[in-house]
Amino acid sequence: VKKALAELVAHVGGRLQGDGTLLIDSLAGLEEARAGQLSFFSNTKYRRAFDATHASAVLVGPGVHRDGVALVTVDDPLLAYARLSQLFFPKALVAHGVRKGALVDPEARVDPTAAVLAGAIVEAGALIGPRAVIHPGAYVGPHVQIGEDSVLHANATVLERCIVGARCILHAGSVVGADGFGFAFDASGPAHVKIAQAGIARLEDDVELGACACVDRATLGETVIGKGSKIDNLVQVAHNVKVGPLSILCAQTGISGSTELGAGVVLGGQVGVANHLKIGDGVRAAAQSGIAHDVEAGATVGGTLAFDVENWKRSALAVRRLPELLKEVRELKRRITVLEKEKENAP
Amino acid sequence: VKKALAELVAHVGGRLQGDGTLLIDSLAGLEEARAGQLSFFSNTKYRRAFDATHASAVLVGPGVHRDGVALVTVDDPLLAYARLSQLFFPKALVAHGVRKGALVDPEARVDPTAAVLAGAIVEAGALIGPRAVIHPGAYVGPHVQIGEDSVLHANATVLERCIVGARCILHAGSVVGADGFGFAFDASGPAHVKIAQAGIARLEDDVELGACACVDRATLGETVIGKGSKIDNLVQVAHNVKVGPLSILCAQTGISGSTELGAGVVLGGQVGVANHLKIGDGVRAAAQSGIAHDVEAGATVGGTLAFDVENWKRSALAVRRLPELLKEVRELKRRITVLEKEKENAP
Amino acid sequence: VKKALAELVAHVGGRLQGDGTLLIDSLAGLEEARAGQLSFFSNTKYRRAFDATHASAVLVGPGVHRDGVALVTVDDPLLAYARLSQLFFPKALVAHGVRKGALVDPEARVDPTAAVLAGAIVEAGALIGPRAVIHPGAYVGPHVQIGEDSVLHANATVLERCIVGARCILHAGSVVGADGFGFAFDASGPAHVKIAQAGIARLEDDVELGACACVDRATLGETVIGKGSKIDNLVQVAHNVKVGPLSILCAQTGISGSTELGAGVVLGGQVGVANHLKIGDGVRAAAQSGIAHDVEAGATVGGTLAFDVENWKRSALAVRRLPELLKEVRELKRRITVLEKEKENAP
Repeated sequence: VKKALAELVAHVGGRLQGDGTLLIDSLAGLEEARAGQLSFFSNTKYRRAFDATHASAVLVGPGVHRDGVALVTVDDPLLAYARLSQLFFPKALVAHGVRKGALVDPEARVDPTAAVLAGAIVEAGALIGPRAVIHPGAYVGPHVQIGEDSVLHANATVLERCIVGARCILHAGSVVGADGFGFAFDASGPAHVKIAQAGIARLEDDVELGACACVDRATLGETVIGKGSKIDNLVQVAHNVKVGPLSILCAQTGISGSTELGAGVVLGGQVGVANHLKIGDGVRAAAQSGIAHDVEAGATVGGTLAFDVENWKRSALAVRRLPELLKEVRELKRRITVLEKEKENAP
Repeated sequence: VKKALAELVAHVGGRLQGDGTLLIDSLAGLEEARAGQLSFFSNTKYRRAFDATHASAVLVGPGVHRDGVALVTVDDPLLAYARLSQLFFPKALVAHGVRKGALVDPEARVDPTAAVLAGAIVEAGALIGPRAVIHPGAYVGPHVQIGEDSVLHANATVLERCIVGARCILHAGSVVGADGFGFAFDASGPAHVKIAQAGIARLEDDVELGACACVDRATLGETVIGKGSKIDNLVQVAHNVKVGPLSILCAQTGISGSTELGAGVVLGGQVGVANHLKIGDGVRAAAQSGIAHDVEAGATVGGTLAFDVENWKRSALAVRRLPELLKEVRELKRRITVLEKEKENAP
Repeated sequence: VKKALAELVAHVGGRLQGDGTLLIDSLAGLEEARAGQLSFFSNTKYRRAFDATHASAVLVGPGVHRDGVALVTVDDPLLAYARLSQLFFPKALVAHGVRKGALVDPEARVDPTAAVLAGAIVEAGALIGPRAVIHPGAYVGPHVQIGEDSVLHANATVLERCIVGARCILHAGSVVGADGFGFAFDASGPAHVKIAQAGIARLEDDVELGACACVDRATLGETVIGKGSKIDNLVQVAHNVKVGPLSILCAQTGISGSTELGAGVVLGGQVGVANHLKIGDGVRAAAQSGIAHDVEAGATVGGTLAFDVENWKRSALAVRRLPELLKEVRELKRRITVLEKEKENAP
């Protein structure tokens, strides 16, 4: 489907320098783009690729210029690109209905506009909302609720009584509602006695959960992922965690039990957060941070026993000079001792 | 099901201050609890919630007092809570039998008291013990043994010949018996030549394995998880690892090949342990530790190239002062040089 | 199947000290081996086990001697062992054909020599190559290509349009082609607007992907795992990453978006690599490294903001002496101040 450039400019609310009648047939990265394609330039690291691109049009931020290509100036080229990407690559349409080979308990309720594909499993008491799609191998446990327009990809698992809001995306292999990790040690056994995990996990609307990401059910009450939060692959969210709305948890990050994250928190990859903490609104943490204490709203932290990110970077670089510093201090000590001895021996 | 408080007190072997005829209908956290519920107070961090709770009864440790609520004094409130949680939230009963839609090879043996649910797969030669439950999408490979009362949750996978003991719980998406990661480099290829992973993985009795946790099969012989050990979500246990009994591996921890962990080892989240090591009985490691050397029984370690945990904490905090220290040492050097020069010039 | 030792020696191109007519019935580790078995000795850490082994024959490197056992001298005992392991433990043969209980779309093309087992799912437009095996619960999405002799283990998932080369092994629970993690923030929502992930993921020939490992599809274009690369369990490969041929990514490592790894790169466990980086051919990184900058070909790095590995090790050990160093510097400062004061007061 070709679209006139002017139409795309209107769609993203941009300002055009170039020919609005140009036909754009698809989107591409700056390096791969050819005539007829539109690209975007939002990271100055790619200036060279921008200068050399064969795209017919490029989304750019204010004040960016280049000859020989149509420029669509917008406040945020990435956001504009996101909107166009949904236009050019719409969600695959899946015909509704319960397919042959789907295993749906007669006591489940599947909205007639929803699709349950071959090899998907829906248990008794489950509720599948309008236009939801349950892909093959996905499992919807007893009394689970799946909201409208939500998608469970292949082999995603939502366990007993858990709740998935509207427009959520659960990627392949993700698990919602496995038991939290709770035991009490009985020395007389000896044994680790299981604490029943009787709560649920609840994803609010517009949550995305990455492949093989895990959100455990609460011991009591709810583990909650707030509206519009996005969770990457292989992330661990333990029992009774509350993640506020619009937060971003990058791949392989882990949040320990009962910790609360505010709104708009952004954690890099492989971050670990200890249990029973409060992480304020808008906190950002560098990749591989280990957060062991409460963090105030708005702070950006990094490192082990994570602290201010700029201080952390300086410290992390200073560590490299530590072996040399040890030697230096030893030498200073020697020189001071010499001075002290001379003093003593002085008349 | 309401139960008299006196009955619950007897069940946990506690001492009651309050009215034993009180009826308790369920359990709840201190903050959420209402009249008719029992809660527990084991972490002093929650003293304020304890003082304000609306629970009718609270499990407390020795020497804890508060008016206006029935107190059940026990040595270990968490352990007592664990026992009561099993009373109030018993394991879901699953009707036995091989369900319609289950794919069971005619050469598998399924105990008549076991349940194999729709969409579960059991291969030839597999053995499913009494009262075991195989949930939808779970896979029991050829010649696998599943012990009595064990549960494989949805989409859990146990591969060829592996052995799962009695009363084990394998959470959704967990994988037992994938190939260990073993290759030999052939420069003449060049190629990484696969070393056949011909051994098995064995979970002893009472093991719990978290969602998307992986226990690889051995190259030769067995990878073993000892009796009563509990493994959290997204943990990696490599080929030929031996984990002793009653150990605890928190989420996203990884144990490299052939390493042996003793009994009662506790590793925090995101810990890494190098290969071919011996980690003694009762060793504890802080979250995100990197263990690169053998650790003696009873030690508690932390940090990179993990060492004594208290020293590690001091060092981790000291690192923050490193940039300042570098400046300071430069300044001392200058002052010493001044003193030395004056000395030289002195008569 | 017993084999004459002379035949095994010929198979690995070794030199025999001992009786070539000896019959070998299987392989075993040095400690477990008994008469009739062959073992290998490649890690000097196991010298004691080598000296005490009951194996009938042992693969050894040049210059290794011991009496009472047949020795097969080869350049690389591990590589020789790998070759013999494939001889003694050949891949399980799976009868070809689409089994009863397999869910294969009529518009998929399955080579007649391939096997699709009960509970496996193959969608419309998918192509399953000669001798490929799709195990139960594995999912082959629409228009996916699976190359000849490749194996998808139970509950592995390959999503729409992705490409798997020849002789690949996808272990249980692995996911190829989930959406990359890409969003643009719209403050006017506020909302994270999804960037359509319209590209694919492609595994070249001879790739192995561990249990619950994830390779995301590209935003545009391809995420690529190069020929002969091996990826361990629970590894994350983000959108648009290129991994060169013959690379090794150990368990729980994560590569962020658009980063390029060269040929023969070896990353230890739990390594994190930031986005948009170039990691040169043959780079090696210690476990738990955090790579935040481009790394030149041939370098070996370690640590946070990873740098030269030897320097890193020295620094990591020096950190332990940091609390003591802080005290020491304070003391030196005091002593210098004393000297300075004396100077001032001097006549």
